[in-house]
Amino acid sequence: MAHAHMGGHVAADETANLIAASKVEGTSVYNSDGDSMGSIYDVMLDKSSGQVAYALMSFGGFLGMGENYHPLPWQKLHYDTGLGGYVVDESPDRLKKAPTITRDYAHDPGWSRRVNDYYGVPI
Amino acid sequence: MAHAHMGGHVAADETANLIAASKVEGTSVYNSDGDSMGSIYDVMLDKSSGQVAYALMSFGGFLGMGENYHPLPWQKLHYDTGLGGYVVDESPDRLKKAPTITRDYAHDPGWSRRVNDYYGVPI
Repeated sequence: MAHAHMGGHVAADETANLIAASKVEGTSVYNSDGDSMGSIYDVMLDKSSGQVAYALMSFGGFLGMGENYHPLPWQKLHYDTGLGGYVVDESPDRLKKAPTITRDYAHDPGWSRRVNDYYGVPI
Repeated sequence: MAHAHMGGHVAADETANLIAASKVEGTSVYNSDGDSMGSIYDVMLDKSSGQVAYALMSFGGFLGMGENYHPLPWQKLHYDTGLGGYVVDESPDRLKKAPTITRDYAHDPGWSRRVNDYYGVPI
């Protein structure tokens, strides 16, 4: 297993079961129609459990002050190898109306409950 | 809650319960004697469960080819607010001898078992 097999190799920042957070960042996000929605800007971890709680999706372009993110519960994402990105298990219409947070999200402690309620995912 | 309270505010990339992966990266790592060991270069996520499995600790300096990381099982780290970094719950001596991986770790699929065995943490 010292050498990668052609076609079956993985990048240096992942293994069969693991992926680097830095590799997740920048990955494209699609809705269930296969339309590109943006890309993952960062991943939020639960401090105590070490569980990935949210991927923050940005809408492309430079992230200046006031720009918004879509926090996507990790459970609602699955990786599509054909698309080479994450698909959100949510209708495109509902995804469009999903809660956003600003860059200053630390000052809005209620956002995670709002987001999970919207997606129907337990906190 | 639009404005931070002095002394009680958190950075924009964390909340009381959540922290951005990008914020974990670069955080200092100490041994149980309080000696600085390096800093977190990246975080490895379990693809299926979304659980943080390892923090990859680097030893400072520029990460060129051939440089090694210490993969630290997430369960062995705790955050010390006094030190402002993570402490590894392992004796400094054992930590020094802990398994390292190279940047090409994808081509060495056995490393996670080796690391977990060393630290006595179930996979």
